[in-house]
Amino acid sequence: MFTSTRFTPTAASIPPQGVRLSRKALRGVPVNYTPLNPLSFILRGALIYPNKVALVHPNVPSPVAYTFSVWAQRTQNLAYALIKAGIQPGDRVAVIAPNNPLIADALQGVLAARAVCCPINTRLKPHEVQYILEHSGAKLILVDHEYKHLVGNVKTRVIVSNDTGREGDPYEDFLTEGRLFSQEKGWPGLETEPDENAAAMLCYTSGTTGRPKGVITTLRGSYLAAIANAFEGQYVPSNTPSSRILPMFHAAGWTYPWSCTFAFATQITLRTVDYTQIWDHLLHSGVTHYCGAPTVQIGIVNDPSARKLDKPIVAVIAGAAPTPHLISELEKTGIKPVHVYGLTETYGPFTRCYDQENWASLSLDERARLMARQGHAFATAEEVRVVNYKEGSDIPQDVPADGKTLGEIVTRGNIVMKEYLNDPEATKKSFRGGNFNSGDLAVMHPDGSISVMDRSKDIIISGGENASSLAIEQELASHPHVLEVSVIARPHVKWGERPMAFVILHPQHTKIWKGRHHEFAVDLKAHAKSRLPGFACPEWVEVVPELPKTSTGKILKTELRKIVAKL
Amino acid sequence: MFTSTRFTPTAASIPPQGVRLSRKALRGVPVNYTPLNPLSFILRGALIYPNKVALVHPNVPSPVAYTFSVWAQRTQNLAYALIKAGIQPGDRVAVIAPNNPLIADALQGVLAARAVCCPINTRLKPHEVQYILEHSGAKLILVDHEYKHLVGNVKTRVIVSNDTGREGDPYEDFLTEGRLFSQEKGWPGLETEPDENAAAMLCYTSGTTGRPKGVITTLRGSYLAAIANAFEGQYVPSNTPSSRILPMFHAAGWTYPWSCTFAFATQITLRTVDYTQIWDHLLHSGVTHYCGAPTVQIGIVNDPSARKLDKPIVAVIAGAAPTPHLISELEKTGIKPVHVYGLTETYGPFTRCYDQENWASLSLDERARLMARQGHAFATAEEVRVVNYKEGSDIPQDVPADGKTLGEIVTRGNIVMKEYLNDPEATKKSFRGGNFNSGDLAVMHPDGSISVMDRSKDIIISGGENASSLAIEQELASHPHVLEVSVIARPHVKWGERPMAFVILHPQHTKIWKGRHHEFAVDLKAHAKSRLPGFACPEWVEVVPELPKTSTGKILKTELRKIVAKL
Repeated sequence: MFTSTRFTPTAASIPPQGVRLSRKALRGVPVNYTPLNPLSFILRGALIYPNKVALVHPNVPSPVAYTFSVWAQRTQNLAYALIKAGIQPGDRVAVIAPNNPLIADALQGVLAARAVCCPINTRLKPHEVQYILEHSGAKLILVDHEYKHLVGNVKTRVIVSNDTGREGDPYEDFLTEGRLFSQEKGWPGLETEPDENAAAMLCYTSGTTGRPKGVITTLRGSYLAAIANAFEGQYVPSNTPSSRILPMFHAAGWTYPWSCTFAFATQITLRTVDYTQIWDHLLHSGVTHYCGAPTVQIGIVNDPSARKLDKPIVAVIAGAAPTPHLISELEKTGIKPVHVYGLTETYGPFTRCYDQENWASLSLDERARLMARQGHAFATAEEVRVVNYKEGSDIPQDVPADGKTLGEIVTRGNIVMKEYLNDPEATKKSFRGGNFNSGDLAVMHPDGSISVMDRSKDIIISGGENASSLAIEQELASHPHVLEVSVIARPHVKWGERPMAFVILHPQHTKIWKGRHHEFAVDLKAHAKSRLPGFACPEWVEVVPELPKTSTGKILKTELRKIVAKL
Repeated sequence: MFTSTRFTPTAASIPPQGVRLSRKALRGVPVNYTPLNPLSFILRGALIYPNKVALVHPNVPSPVAYTFSVWAQRTQNLAYALIKAGIQPGDRVAVIAPNNPLIADALQGVLAARAVCCPINTRLKPHEVQYILEHSGAKLILVDHEYKHLVGNVKTRVIVSNDTGREGDPYEDFLTEGRLFSQEKGWPGLETEPDENAAAMLCYTSGTTGRPKGVITTLRGSYLAAIANAFEGQYVPSNTPSSRILPMFHAAGWTYPWSCTFAFATQITLRTVDYTQIWDHLLHSGVTHYCGAPTVQIGIVNDPSARKLDKPIVAVIAGAAPTPHLISELEKTGIKPVHVYGLTETYGPFTRCYDQENWASLSLDERARLMARQGHAFATAEEVRVVNYKEGSDIPQDVPADGKTLGEIVTRGNIVMKEYLNDPEATKKSFRGGNFNSGDLAVMHPDGSISVMDRSKDIIISGGENASSLAIEQELASHPHVLEVSVIARPHVKWGERPMAFVILHPQHTKIWKGRHHEFAVDLKAHAKSRLPGFACPEWVEVVPELPKTSTGKILKTELRKIVAKL
């Protein structure tokens, strides 16, 4: 279905015949040791399925499609071009792009140059981007033409991509330079990083508060996380396309770009989250998997193009807890939700909600409630724990597995970040007690699965009780007229704090409540009262046309708090 | 389908409530490091699917079925029992058993005690077993009642299992001792092996010639091989049963026992290769996967119980190249063959024949020919190469990828053994040139896939030409009356050597050739002539009722050579 007949890659993208697909052999390492490196997957793709389409960028004026063989050559060209530009092992190379071949190349080619890839969120303000460019010490910047203005006036070398894939595009010229510089030494001319614990990526946290922190991940961790994501996302080695809705700059696309090369999947990159385009691909491009935060999933099921799919598609959901309502809506469409949880510091997902045999006999609503749990740790992660600290102690104490006691989610092991770049204080703090401390509050159920209750700062202390804003949101979202909802604490004279809800109405129901938002608030409060303890019922309900969000679709509660502060 | 209602595990097998499923935390390791260890999978199984059936042993007088939770407890009991018996980290524990819970437990529990598990082939002669027991320095022996006689008169402590799983069985008493000794300290009372490169298994090569060699594998390698096998065998995390036809003593069951715990699969252990039992499970136990050498696969498709399956089953084939004929027979039954290749020194399989898109349009025969290739390396293996050495040099030279030039298969990386136990000379020899040298001869096709042509010692030099006995066997096996065939070199006055074929006739056709074996030989030679070059045509054809085989189903060409020597 993805033929490249109408498109010819640049001359420099065409590999020579009989090219070797392994990097320079390491000397002085044991025969039974190869440093784990996710770059190995694309080389395997090019070896085993050279003519399979690996990367498709269809919804642009100049669409492109690359086979594994061509893509691996382009990766190699990028590596040589970076080396020619003076990039040394360990140097940071920034990339500012939406989902497109530029960033897809960077996730492979920067590693091939033994450099560290630093993808930057395209939705940040120029001063934020410039902070990251400075903090990361990026030695070279790859930028998509639409985001040139974010770079500002830097001395660093900037390579612009016009996202055409055609000769004359400055990025293509850069790749061609690399090819020439290689003198056809090919992959064996590129050094292999001997240390699997070397840095692979530098991803900045989206920072709902404060300065973004630079999360350093390793080659070993990226390799193991990518394999786990392929397995938990139920990828089977094949040519099934996987849609890239999740931006790749977000925690390196949760490592899915490497899960795809591991499983020989075709990646479809979409510059924007356009539900009509997405449905076009879900229906006509043989898509079998995609990833997206709940807010994207909501957009998908509510799009006018939405219809019951012929073949089931697996949707990996992370970034926030999906509501039972959303899960049931997805299932009605034939989309099988796989609910995972994680943070930038854990390479994206490291837990998954594993469905149990007896769930099949439950009502959809009940089942959806269980599926909204964050579940258990991945096979390549270490155990997830929920802990508290006694005052003055750094020894984590597990909460009882009672589904009630609140504690902080902690974990350790191969898919935990190496450190925050140039921030030993923050690293030390986040590694308190020998674990990575997530800042997310959760309960542990008797079966050992976890449910995230809130970010620690989002908990509402109402009359001395801990009210989880997430739990309240989940109940409010079950009201049939609610499309999306966010709940925050608002100061209250008597109770200290009380929940306030910001609600977007479902488009189908906007009309009937027009001019009657107060009545809707009464209706929603009644709905809440039948489902929540008194202290958790929203005291205030505000109907809004939209909610402030981060570039990755997370609702910015900090912005809502600013609104509340002015009330 | 596997209920344990009629069976109650021993009291010591029942875990206490709220048991923690992680071993003692390591101190002094980075927060982002967990040593890879395949033991982690069963603990995850017990955490996520405690009540799922993990291990079933049905075709015995005292059948048993263990859930993940119970099995993990038994694993723990075994570890404590071994520690109580004086087993120290790194000590070898031998296990002599057919496929049954004893050996399944050992593959987990010995690792939990930080010891090295040494499974011994039950089909060896007592003096061979005793050689291995001595060479391995085993400090304790776990033996199945049927194989007690193999142990001989040793001073080492021997624990016998009567394979009952019931109280009063000496092995069960041993486990109960372990539980008592644990004082309910549980998993956190067991030390975690900090070094992922520590020895996991000690598996002896089946040794078609000479003394068996002791192959040491590591925890890291076992972990990565098990994940690759799960992925390449197309296991999806679920409760799908997987049949254990492959003996677990053979290269630790190719690491599949851990692939199964990784994927939460139910393992069915069968003491013997009984095709009626196997078909009973294929048809009625929900089996989705099984492994077996070609000789076992031949038995399966030719069994009177064989019929077209309702749902496809994946059969992983290794140990020898399957003939095109066998592959097509399997497919007719609805069994999807996944052809893999490897050796004890590579943890079992490390290459797989990856089917290509355009194969679907080929004739079954043509496709089967391609599927008989050994293919490309696994994702967690490093590249497979075919090389020769110039005289006096240790630098491997890759053969041209022409599908013709013969060379030796070599590889390196994470799923290559650590060493041969106490045999630095053999280790050094096998690691010549920085790779593991397999001793198997192959060609590399233009697409980078390999075809094994022969063991280096099995090649027939006929009139100065290299004739591959395997290639000849594949052509002879396409004769419709041939069930199984083996070809070896026989001295020839004029040509130096010429091929001689030993043939088992298909049961359906034995009758028509009765007393006319000479005519059959003429018919088979004519068949060969139309398909093979003259130097590769068998000069002699001998019809035999059976072929000499190793315990793992490999044909013993050494025995055939002895016959030829007497002619």
